Amino acid sequence: MIDGLPDGLTARHPTVEDHPRVLAVLETWWGGLKGEAGALERALLLPRLYFQHFTTTSYVVEHRDGQLAAFLVGFMSQSEPDTAYVHFVGVDPALHGRGIGQALYGAFFELARAHGRRVVRCVTSPENTASQAFHTRLGFTASMPVDDYDGPGLTRVAFTRVLELA
Amino acid sequence: MIDGLPDGLTARHPTVEDHPRVLAVLETWWGGLKGEAGALERALLLPRLYFQHFTTTSYVVEHRDGQLAAFLVGFMSQSEPDTAYVHFVGVDPALHGRGIGQALYGAFFELARAHGRRVVRCVTSPENTASQAFHTRLGFTASMPVDDYDGPGLTRVAFTRVLELA
Repeated sequence: MIDGLPDGLTARHPTVEDHPRVLAVLETWWGGLKGEAGALERALLLPRLYFQHFTTTSYVVEHRDGQLAAFLVGFMSQSEPDTAYVHFVGVDPALHGRGIGQALYGAFFELARAHGRRVVRCVTSPENTASQAFHTRLGFTASMPVDDYDGPGLTRVAFTRVLELA
Repeated sequence: MIDGLPDGLTARHPTVEDHPRVLAVLETWWGGLKGEAGALERALLLPRLYFQHFTTTSYVVEHRDGQLAAFLVGFMSQSEPDTAYVHFVGVDPALHGRGIGQALYGAFFELARAHGRRVVRCVTSPENTASQAFHTRLGFTASMPVDDYDGPGLTRVAFTRVLELA
């Protein structure tokens, strides 16, 4: 389903049963970034609705034993016909540097192209410098940090990636 | 654009400029339900993406002077072709009892039908008894509260409303 994954890992679209599994790994993988407020922020950014209504444009990656290795939650913009949006991506830090994030984004770019999208957008917090470096390597252009982007105190860096024609 | 609104109020689809305006009224309208944690919860449930990518299935209602009176943020499920989802609705408490919420849901039901949807879903927190009574009056069926529905500690009541054929 996804090209470029390391041996022993497979990808599929998520089901609603994956929602608590993804929330459970978030805290481990994010290493407690921004403490308890960060934990609540991450949980609230992934309500169950994403695992009910946007499953066909999202992925989970698992080991042979079913253990979660990575996920990507994204959707096709409903009001911007040329835009696809990546809402939340996570890769087990023990597996960083093996191209899993790149493979997930690659699969999403293909999906976006198949839906006639020309631009992929996403945001991250300014504290998450690893995420910013990762997106820049993938060809995204970063905005300056925007204060209160997502609400009071919720500063964000916005990323844009134009898709090449297939 | 919407039938059944009181005189002096008009509805339109939101733009990204409405995002901070909606967040600003949330605290007033929700009366500080669940305190600071509730405030953060509400802000995080409405990231800017809803005012960028789901504007065509969402509404804001304004007074003649532009003051916000109500809003509804919803979308057509991307993975469940028969389902439409109402994510967040607010009405100025000073205007409660005048049918504005009902008018917003009525408009969303019409939109959902026009998109071939047969079911509308939404969730609320068990503390929000006014919301539960409102949805029951509108013909929604409530689930029992589901612990950790949206994540650890985030209990929700889930509502379902079957749409009559047009």
